[in-house]
Amino acid sequence: MSAISATGLLKPALVQIAREIDASFDALLPLAGDQRDRLVEAMRYAAIGGGKRMRPLLLAATAGLFGADRTSAIRAGTAIEAIHVYSLIHDDLPCMDDDAMRHGKPTVHKAFDEATAVLAGDALHAFAFEVLSDPAMSGDPFVRIELVRTLATASGMDGMAGGQMMDIEAEKGSFDLQTVTRLQQLKTGALLGAAVEMGAILGRLPVEGRTPLRGYARDIGLAFQIADDLLDAEGDEEAAGKALRKDAAAGKETFLSLLGAERAREQARMLVDQAIAHLSHFGPEADLLREIARFIIERDR
Amino acid sequence: MSAISATGLLKPALVQIAREIDASFDALLPLAGDQRDRLVEAMRYAAIGGGKRMRPLLLAATAGLFGADRTSAIRAGTAIEAIHVYSLIHDDLPCMDDDAMRHGKPTVHKAFDEATAVLAGDALHAFAFEVLSDPAMSGDPFVRIELVRTLATASGMDGMAGGQMMDIEAEKGSFDLQTVTRLQQLKTGALLGAAVEMGAILGRLPVEGRTPLRGYARDIGLAFQIADDLLDAEGDEEAAGKALRKDAAAGKETFLSLLGAERAREQARMLVDQAIAHLSHFGPEADLLREIARFIIERDR
Repeated sequence: MSAISATGLLKPALVQIAREIDASFDALLPLAGDQRDRLVEAMRYAAIGGGKRMRPLLLAATAGLFGADRTSAIRAGTAIEAIHVYSLIHDDLPCMDDDAMRHGKPTVHKAFDEATAVLAGDALHAFAFEVLSDPAMSGDPFVRIELVRTLATASGMDGMAGGQMMDIEAEKGSFDLQTVTRLQQLKTGALLGAAVEMGAILGRLPVEGRTPLRGYARDIGLAFQIADDLLDAEGDEEAAGKALRKDAAAGKETFLSLLGAERAREQARMLVDQAIAHLSHFGPEADLLREIARFIIERDR
Repeated sequence: MSAISATGLLKPALVQIAREIDASFDALLPLAGDQRDRLVEAMRYAAIGGGKRMRPLLLAATAGLFGADRTSAIRAGTAIEAIHVYSLIHDDLPCMDDDAMRHGKPTVHKAFDEATAVLAGDALHAFAFEVLSDPAMSGDPFVRIELVRTLATASGMDGMAGGQMMDIEAEKGSFDLQTVTRLQQLKTGALLGAAVEMGAILGRLPVEGRTPLRGYARDIGLAFQIADDLLDAEGDEEAAGKALRKDAAAGKETFLSLLGAERAREQARMLVDQAIAHLSHFGPEADLLREIARFIIERDR
């Protein structure tokens, strides 16, 4: 699929980042010891012990490229993962996708209740910006504010929330390939792009030097979504840990419905090759990012 | 009620801040011209043309005390109001307070739908941090990050969201006065306190000098909530623009249920006097803050 052979960096990196992000949520979300504990428990239930931690992994791999310290990368990774987790909690609500399972366990509104799920999402949303704005994040206020700005933009109406709205509207009309691409760039691509961008900020890479990394992020973002569409159509529910076959049931146009499975798969492979090509002026220090790009379309969940 | 006579600053200030905040939301929330417009319309519907704008007013009045420029105060005021508005949208949801009217018009989930209401809240939440982190907010990254930090802390689990959780739990058990006070300090007090704090940040008041203003904010925060309890019990639904008599129906303990109307009213008056006393070393430049404190318990909505 790609000219570069796997160097086996990915598997230990996935294990390590999962352990670090769990430990970070555990430390940063202590129980309050009062009537708020139901909220903190719901936040911890959703945040700890689930998910691939793809965004923290991308963030830390990019930060590592420029020798940024790991502690900062994990803190910023915890913030971006908190945004991702909040969006899943709200997406799973009965009025949204009405999902009962996530990461192989009941969704937050099933395990707790709807009101607690709404609040846990809101509190994780605020938590992300608390973590990034805390002086413990970085001694440099400019680094902190750039992290905040990147994450807020990627999660708001010009990013994830805007993409979610388009996704709801997609059930009403037939979107063309251009509109589906735009939808996915906002819904998933913006936050994956923010992960890479935040890594570059921690690495103190000047804005002028970020073009190749942004190209990499854009390409893996689309490949990620095509892989998600394929997983939804062809994957195993148990491995995925959530309900599948939802796009077709909702009558939504996706990359898969518009391109067919074969062309969609081909397109994803092409995007991964293109993503890796963006990294050509980096040496072996970018091998983890290359492996992540390949993993994006090979995962089973 | 207070030794200081009204100087008539409040009425024009309320009119002016309402106009400025509406204009600011209008400018900062343009329609996208694509399938996200239902989301932007819901955000605009909730944000423009309603509410007393108490938090922006407090922020701008405090910033004005130190000669901070009005444009920055209005931007920061728009951000804190966006947080307040998002919390109202989510509070009004069927799984939360299930309210049909807000500011005299149908709530967002009634005027649009539940999914759009969840997303509009989420998008306004992100919007607040986009506005504060934008270089247009302040040329000084330290000012911007302190604004972000103050607002994120006041709206998360150690602030508004935590208070909301306690409020839900309040329906299950009988809270004592101490617990109700703590609940209200988090649920309403934290964000009112953040308004004053953000004004002080824009005014570049060192942290050491903020104690009297924090005392002022804490006292008006509690007075505000007692006044809200009295309004809920005795107010006019039409003037309030929302459903009332909800606390008693939910069986929640409030300042009113615990103290009785007469002592609650007396307590609110005492808190206002105390709030004004915190401003004693300021001259007439703090008259607007003094009038706001009195208005807190005299309003009819």
